[in-house]
Amino acid sequence: MSIRELVYDGNEKKIYATEDSDLVLIHYNDVATAFGGVKRATLKGKGICNNNISAMAFAALSAAGVENHFVRLENEREQVCLRVEAIPLQMVVRNRLAGTTARMLGLENGFRIPNTVFELRYNCDSLGDPMINDHHAVALGIVSYAELGYLYDLARRADDVLSAFFHKAGIELVDYKMEFGRRPDGNIIVSDEISPDNCRLWDESTGEVLDKDRFRHDMSDVCASYRQVMDRLINITQK
Amino acid sequence: MSIRELVYDGNEKKIYATEDSDLVLIHYNDVATAFGGVKRATLKGKGICNNNISAMAFAALSAAGVENHFVRLENEREQVCLRVEAIPLQMVVRNRLAGTTARMLGLENGFRIPNTVFELRYNCDSLGDPMINDHHAVALGIVSYAELGYLYDLARRADDVLSAFFHKAGIELVDYKMEFGRRPDGNIIVSDEISPDNCRLWDESTGEVLDKDRFRHDMSDVCASYRQVMDRLINITQK
Repeated sequence: MSIRELVYDGNEKKIYATEDSDLVLIHYNDVATAFGGVKRATLKGKGICNNNISAMAFAALSAAGVENHFVRLENEREQVCLRVEAIPLQMVVRNRLAGTTARMLGLENGFRIPNTVFELRYNCDSLGDPMINDHHAVALGIVSYAELGYLYDLARRADDVLSAFFHKAGIELVDYKMEFGRRPDGNIIVSDEISPDNCRLWDESTGEVLDKDRFRHDMSDVCASYRQVMDRLINITQK
Repeated sequence: MSIRELVYDGNEKKIYATEDSDLVLIHYNDVATAFGGVKRATLKGKGICNNNISAMAFAALSAAGVENHFVRLENEREQVCLRVEAIPLQMVVRNRLAGTTARMLGLENGFRIPNTVFELRYNCDSLGDPMINDHHAVALGIVSYAELGYLYDLARRADDVLSAFFHKAGIELVDYKMEFGRRPDGNIIVSDEISPDNCRLWDESTGEVLDKDRFRHDMSDVCASYRQVMDRLINITQK
């Protein structure tokens, strides 16, 4: 796949335009950042894990009919995806409450909830990606109420599929920060990545943390945990 | 009305149980607080204004069939209301974006919006009354999704009635922080107060701020503005 110009230069990944104007190439590198970029490190092999985990998770979404940007794995660090116009929203789907939300509500980390919690964030670095609600997103002109309804539908379907997918590997999907993009025809699809960088993944038997919280909280073996997630998923997808 | 024990001792008002177990007496004093109680002052006559403004505004809601706790004005500083079990939620209804929300979204104060913005806050002093969304409120066990639907319906109807009511007095209702209570029969009604302490009120002709923002931002004539709101409302309600 012939690469043209760099269209996104992030910490953890770069996105390149390609000879096919409808496709981009996403390159995963080994940089880890947390707390809005305040904490930063290079974790050897992380990009390989995230590229492969994300590819398998998106393939699971595709198999279940959840529209997303993934096209194919290109090599160990790169995947080909549909080009989309990014919607500046993050949708966090929570099956338990952990991290900032648990603290905000005065609940213990991992608080079990009777409902699925959805949270919107406004993807805006200079404002610190604030948590917003549906009405703010519409007031900002980002989406219509009807489009929001579709985003929640996508999020609910993606959460069902991914929870079952990780469960097969003995991993609980505690939460997942998803992003969306608009296709040239106006259709909205799931974009970005699905990896231990933007999901909380806990071992179902031991409760062991297998995600970026290991990096945030200075726990050991960050890459070994990412690799464990990848290997477990390879194991179940090859069955 | 014979008073029994104090059931709520707030900065700006006190609530007393009465001889009638279904009724409470709300006493408005002259204390003003802002920024979570960090800023505090006594503003002579403020309680009289808020008691009277709130009584007129709740009467307007009652006249339009929006269920609320107001029963009658008792004297210049006190009103009789239905006793309710407070629901620990604040619902902010915004017809323009001002204050914290405008800053959070990177917009100018008074930003005009195509939709009405509703915001929930979890009424919890120790957590700083954080902004939450519907899913958090349900996860916390405060309300069901069906009850939330009813709260939004009440909020929308109250906003329509109050916007028209203040407009008659040449005042724009920019936003309004409302609270709700449960009656013994389970019905949810609008409670708390409706005054320059929990509404942003701007003169429609001049844009002059007539509410608690004058106190927050060290502007002059806080009480004169509250009195102006009261006098204008007395003028239209006596027509």
